[in-house]
Amino acid sequence: MLYFNCDYMEGAHPLILQKLTETNLEHTYGYGNDQYCEQAKEKIRKACNCPEAEVHFLVGGTQTNAAVIKSLLRPWEGVISADTGHIAVHEGGAIETNCHKVLTLPEKNGKLEADAVRSYLEVFYRDGSHLHMVQPGMIYISHPTEIGSLYTKQELTDLRALCDEYQIPLFLDGARLGYGLMAYDTDVTLQDIAELTDVFYIGGTKVGALFGEAVVVPRRKLNPGFVTLTKQQGAMLAKGRLLGIQFDTLFTDDLYFKISRHAIDMAMQLKKILTDAGCPLFFDSPSNQQFVVLTKEQEEALAGKVSYESWQELPDNKRAVRFCASWATKEEDLCALKEILAQIS
Amino acid sequence: MLYFNCDYMEGAHPLILQKLTETNLEHTYGYGNDQYCEQAKEKIRKACNCPEAEVHFLVGGTQTNAAVIKSLLRPWEGVISADTGHIAVHEGGAIETNCHKVLTLPEKNGKLEADAVRSYLEVFYRDGSHLHMVQPGMIYISHPTEIGSLYTKQELTDLRALCDEYQIPLFLDGARLGYGLMAYDTDVTLQDIAELTDVFYIGGTKVGALFGEAVVVPRRKLNPGFVTLTKQQGAMLAKGRLLGIQFDTLFTDDLYFKISRHAIDMAMQLKKILTDAGCPLFFDSPSNQQFVVLTKEQEEALAGKVSYESWQELPDNKRAVRFCASWATKEEDLCALKEILAQIS
Amino acid sequence: MLYFNCDYMEGAHPLILQKLTETNLEHTYGYGNDQYCEQAKEKIRKACNCPEAEVHFLVGGTQTNAAVIKSLLRPWEGVISADTGHIAVHEGGAIETNCHKVLTLPEKNGKLEADAVRSYLEVFYRDGSHLHMVQPGMIYISHPTEIGSLYTKQELTDLRALCDEYQIPLFLDGARLGYGLMAYDTDVTLQDIAELTDVFYIGGTKVGALFGEAVVVPRRKLNPGFVTLTKQQGAMLAKGRLLGIQFDTLFTDDLYFKISRHAIDMAMQLKKILTDAGCPLFFDSPSNQQFVVLTKEQEEALAGKVSYESWQELPDNKRAVRFCASWATKEEDLCALKEILAQIS
Amino acid sequence: MLYFNCDYMEGAHPLILQKLTETNLEHTYGYGNDQYCEQAKEKIRKACNCPEAEVHFLVGGTQTNAAVIKSLLRPWEGVISADTGHIAVHEGGAIETNCHKVLTLPEKNGKLEADAVRSYLEVFYRDGSHLHMVQPGMIYISHPTEIGSLYTKQELTDLRALCDEYQIPLFLDGARLGYGLMAYDTDVTLQDIAELTDVFYIGGTKVGALFGEAVVVPRRKLNPGFVTLTKQQGAMLAKGRLLGIQFDTLFTDDLYFKISRHAIDMAMQLKKILTDAGCPLFFDSPSNQQFVVLTKEQEEALAGKVSYESWQELPDNKRAVRFCASWATKEEDLCALKEILAQIS
Repeated sequence: MLYFNCDYMEGAHPLILQKLTETNLEHTYGYGNDQYCEQAKEKIRKACNCPEAEVHFLVGGTQTNAAVIKSLLRPWEGVISADTGHIAVHEGGAIETNCHKVLTLPEKNGKLEADAVRSYLEVFYRDGSHLHMVQPGMIYISHPTEIGSLYTKQELTDLRALCDEYQIPLFLDGARLGYGLMAYDTDVTLQDIAELTDVFYIGGTKVGALFGEAVVVPRRKLNPGFVTLTKQQGAMLAKGRLLGIQFDTLFTDDLYFKISRHAIDMAMQLKKILTDAGCPLFFDSPSNQQFVVLTKEQEEALAGKVSYESWQELPDNKRAVRFCASWATKEEDLCALKEILAQIS
Repeated sequence: MLYFNCDYMEGAHPLILQKLTETNLEHTYGYGNDQYCEQAKEKIRKACNCPEAEVHFLVGGTQTNAAVIKSLLRPWEGVISADTGHIAVHEGGAIETNCHKVLTLPEKNGKLEADAVRSYLEVFYRDGSHLHMVQPGMIYISHPTEIGSLYTKQELTDLRALCDEYQIPLFLDGARLGYGLMAYDTDVTLQDIAELTDVFYIGGTKVGALFGEAVVVPRRKLNPGFVTLTKQQGAMLAKGRLLGIQFDTLFTDDLYFKISRHAIDMAMQLKKILTDAGCPLFFDSPSNQQFVVLTKEQEEALAGKVSYESWQELPDNKRAVRFCASWATKEEDLCALKEILAQIS
Repeated sequence: MLYFNCDYMEGAHPLILQKLTETNLEHTYGYGNDQYCEQAKEKIRKACNCPEAEVHFLVGGTQTNAAVIKSLLRPWEGVISADTGHIAVHEGGAIETNCHKVLTLPEKNGKLEADAVRSYLEVFYRDGSHLHMVQPGMIYISHPTEIGSLYTKQELTDLRALCDEYQIPLFLDGARLGYGLMAYDTDVTLQDIAELTDVFYIGGTKVGALFGEAVVVPRRKLNPGFVTLTKQQGAMLAKGRLLGIQFDTLFTDDLYFKISRHAIDMAMQLKKILTDAGCPLFFDSPSNQQFVVLTKEQEEALAGKVSYESWQELPDNKRAVRFCASWATKEEDLCALKEILAQIS
Repeated sequence: MLYFNCDYMEGAHPLILQKLTETNLEHTYGYGNDQYCEQAKEKIRKACNCPEAEVHFLVGGTQTNAAVIKSLLRPWEGVISADTGHIAVHEGGAIETNCHKVLTLPEKNGKLEADAVRSYLEVFYRDGSHLHMVQPGMIYISHPTEIGSLYTKQELTDLRALCDEYQIPLFLDGARLGYGLMAYDTDVTLQDIAELTDVFYIGGTKVGALFGEAVVVPRRKLNPGFVTLTKQQGAMLAKGRLLGIQFDTLFTDDLYFKISRHAIDMAMQLKKILTDAGCPLFFDSPSNQQFVVLTKEQEEALAGKVSYESWQELPDNKRAVRFCASWATKEEDLCALKEILAQIS
C-alpha cells in the first residue's frame, strides 16, 4: 500500500532519533530548563534574524494555538479567522473551551484577506450594538493554509498594516511552515514572518520531528505568565529536552529547510503525476498538500493500493481528495503511484 | 418624541409595581424560597398544563440562555443555532465564555429549519474527522425569532422529531414569548411549546415585568445542580420574591396574555400605518417587532420626532429600521406617528 | 414571628419604590444609557470625592465579584482571599467557573492581614516551582467582612502598600459597605476606600435597594471591555435605569448613610439585648450582623417566635447563630425580642 | 555530579528507543488509530484483569488530570483532593482553568482518609446554604502520594465504599504507579486498583517512557465524548503510535513492573545510605521518593557533587530535601553518594 494520507504517518527524521538515542541517559533538569532547549532557541533566533525573540517549545498544534490565543486575548475578545481555519473547525472547540469565540470570515483561496477583515472591522465598529458583541482582539492565519495556499509578502504586509491600525496582534500558525517557506515561487522568508507577525510557530510535528512546535515571539514579550499558562494548559512537557533536542537537530545545518524542500520536490512531482493521469486539481496548491478530484471508478481502482484522504463529496459520485507529500516521501513511491495510475486510465 | 426603539423602554405593568409596593415590607426568605415564587410557579405549571414542570426564575435573557445551555451540554458539545440567533451575535460571547461553541446554520426567515439541521447532522456524522470537531449537543431556537417571525406547530414538531432521533434537547428562547403566542395567525400555544420542547423560558423583561425570565422544564428534571449553577453564574437574585411577585401578577387573570395581545394589536396598526405611508416592509413580521425600509429623506423628516432602531444599512442611502410595539404602547402614540408620516409624504 | 435572619428579607426603602413608580412609564434607552444612571454616577463620584471615577451598576454581589475579578486577572493568575471570603465559599464556584483559582489564606477576625499576605508572597516567590503554580494576581477583601468585622484605616493602608509593592490591584467587596461606614468607631470613610483601593463596590441589595451594586473604579480605567464583559456574564440589566433610579435615590440627601446608621443603631441595641439576656458573643461585631451563642433550651424557647440564622454547630448542643439588623429593622421588633428573651431566662 | 532530583531526568528505557527506531518509517494512521495503540491497550487490559476496560493514551500528567476530571464533573461540581494533591498545588490552576474548584481537605501522611472525607460530606449536606456552594462531585487521590506514601487496600476499599454511598467517582492519579505497586510491603495490586477505582492512570513519563500516561476506565464508559475532549484540551498526540509503542514495550514481559522494582530497590538503598549517614527522615516513604533533613553544613559539603531537590525550609538553617530513585538509577551512583557522605560526616 502506498500512503499519501497526511504528513504525520512516520516517526521522525532519522537524525532526530539518533540524537535522542545518543543523549538518552544524560541527566537534564525538567520543563525545558536544559541546554538543548537553550541551543535550539538560539539557533531559531538566528534563523529568524531576531536576537531578542522569545521561543517556547510545545508538543502539538492545537495546544499551541490555544495557549497563544489565550495569552493574547482578554475575556471579552475573540479571534478573527478564516471560516476554514484549523481553530474554527478541527480542534474540537479548543478556543471556545478556553472561553473565546472564533470570529469567522469567508476564506478566499484558503486565506484571510486584509480587505475583508477591514470591511468586517469597519461594519463592526459602526454597529450601535457592538459593545454587546464579542470584540475582535487578534487575527489568526495559517501559512500554508488548510488547502496548501500561501500568503504573498504583500498580503502579509497588508494584514500587518491592518493590525497596526486596529492595534491587534497577528498570529501565524505554521504547523506546516517549512513546506510554505520552501515552495518554489513564494516570496516569503522566515525573516519576513518574524518581521510581519507578532507571534508565529514553526511546526515540527508535520516537518520531521516526532512532535513539537516552536512558538516564536519576535519582538515584544508575551505576558510573563506564558510559562504558567503552558503548565496550566497541560502543554508543558516534563522532559522538555525532547523538544530541545529535536529543534536543535532541525535547525542544525539547515535540516528543517532541506527536508522541507525535499517535500516540495515530491509534492510537485505528485501534482504532475496526478494531473498527467487526468485528475483535475481541486485546489492548485504550491505546497506539500495536493488536492485533486477522483471519479468513483478511479477510487475503486486505487482501493487497496493507494491510501489518501477524503476532502469533500462532489456531485456525480466524484470526490475531492488530498494527497500529501512530506519530508519522508520517497521518489520510489511516486513512481509506483504513477504506474498504478497508468494501469487504471 | 415618540419612542418605538424597543420593548424595554418603560418600567413594568402598573399592577406589578402596585404589588411590589404592597408587599414591600413583608419578610421573606431569600433566593426564591418564598411563597410568591411558589404561587407563581404553580400558576405557570397550570398555564403550561404541566403539573410536574420545574420552574426557575432568573433576571435576564442572556444569563438564562447561558445557564440553561451550560446545564444541558457536556464539555465537548456545542449548541446549534441560526446564524442570526441572539446567542450567536448579541450576547457578548456568553456561550463561549462558558466554554461552548455556537454551531451556526443559515437562518431562513429568521428560523432554523429541521431539514437544514438534519442535513448538517448527516454531513457531520459522515465526516471522518468528526471526533475532532465540536459535537452537536442541543438545538437553540427563539420564538418569536430575532426578526419577529414565528415557528408553526408543524415546524416545531419537525424539530422535536429530529431531536428525538438524535437524542439531543430542544431549547426555546421565549424572551418575547407572549408576543408570539398572541399573534393573530399562530397555531402554537403555550401548551404546545411545553409539549414540544425540553426547556423553554417565558420572557418577562420585554413583556410587562421590570425584569425576569421564567425557565420551564416541562418533563424531566434538569440536573439537580441547576440551582447551584444559577448561583455560580451570578444569576440568583437575593430577593427572589421580586421575581415571584412579578410572575405571580403576570399569570393572574391572564395578564401576560392580555398585555401581549394588546402589543400585537398595536403592532399590526403600526405595520399598517408604516406601509400605508409607503414604507416597504423589510421583513413581514406577525409579532411585536416591525421592520421597514426608510429613505434618507424620510429619516431626516422623522429626526427629533420619532425614535426607532437602525437594523441594517442598505444601498441608495436607505436603511432597514425596527419599530417595536409592546405592552406599554399607547394608541395615541400611533395616531401621532400617523400624522407625522402624513406630513412628510 | 420576629425575623432577624438576614439583611435582605424586605423589598426596598419606600422612597425607592416611590421613585420607580413615578418614573415607571417614562421612556429610556436600555442597558444603563439613561439619565438616571448618569445622575447616580455623578452623585457617587461626589460622595467618593473622585470626579474621574468610573461607575458601573450591576444587579448582584456574586456577579459583581465575578465580573470585576475576571476583568482584572490574566489567565494564569488567581485572587488572594481570606479562607472565609464570600468568593471562597458561598458563590457556588463563580470565580472558578470563570477559570480562576481563589488563593485562600487563614482569616484573622474575618480579615486578611497585610503581614500574612506578605509572608505568603515571599514564600511563593522563593519557591523554585512557583512558575508551576497559580500566580497571585490581586487581593480581595470585604468590608465589613463575613463576620461583621471592619478594617482600620491603617490595615487598609498596609494592604495598599503591599499591593503597590507587588503591583497587584486591591478589590474591596462592599456588599454591606454602608453598615461598615456608619459603624460607631470606624476610622474608615468612603473617600478613604476610594483612595486606598483599585476597585470597590457599594452594595445596594443589602442596604436599602431592591437589588443593585455600584462598582467604583476610582482612578484608572478598568479595561474598556468591561461593558462587554458585563454583557457576556449576563450581568447587564436591560432596563438599566432601575439601577440608576435606585442609586440616585440612595445618594440623594445622604439616604444611603442615614439608613445605614439606623441599622447600626438597631444592631447595637440588638447586641445589648442579646448579651443582657446572657447570650455570649461568638464574634464581637461592630456592624449590622451580630453573632451569639445559644443553648438548646434557648433555641427551643425562641422557636416559632424569633427567626435567625444558624452559623456554626458547637459542642454541648450549643450553636453560634446570626442576628441581622438592617435599614428596615424596627425598634418595636427589638422590644418584642427583649420581652421574649426576658421570659425565657 | 550525582543527580537525584527527580524521576524524569533521563530519556526512556533503551528498549523503548530501540522500538521507536525500528518502527520509525512505518506508516500509521494518526491520533491513536494504529495497531501499536491497540496492542498496548490489550496488554494493559490483561494486566488489569479488565477485558472490557477503556484505555486512552495521553502525553502528560497535568493534561490527563484535567481531561479526566473535566469529563467526570458537571459545571456545579468540584473535585475533592488532599490539600497537598498535585492538582491543588502544582498544575498551574489546570482544574480551575477548566472551571472547577479543587475542594481541599487536610492530608494525613499525604493521603486522603475516608473518614475525613465522610465528615466533610456530612457537614456539607447539613449546611443550610450548601446549594450556594460548589457540590462535591468526585474524589481525587494519587498513589503513591506527593510524599511517596501508599494507600493500603483497606484504605482504598473504604474510599470506594464512601464513593458508592455518595455516588461520586473515585479517580486515582498514578503518575508514579509502578513505584507504588512494586514497593516492598504494599498489599495493593494493579488489579485491586482497577477494581476499586472508577478511573486511574498508569504513569509512563516518570516510569521509563519518554512521556505518556495510560488512562484506564475499568468498567463503565467514560462519556463517549472523551476523545473529542482530549482533542479540545490539546492532549491528543498526532502521532499517537508514539504512545502505543511505548506502552506496548512497557507492558511486554513485565518491563513496567521490573523497572519499577529496580527503582524501589535503589530507593531503599538510598534511604539506608542517607539514614546511615545520620540524616533524619522527613517522611518515611516506601516508594521511590525519599525525604530527609539536611543541615546547612551538609548541604555545603554536598554542593557541586550531589544534586537533589529542596522540599521545605526548616528552622535552624535546616532543610527537608528530596532524593529520587527511578528506573534509571545506577547502583554505582549510590555507592558514590555513600562515599561522599562518609567524607563529610
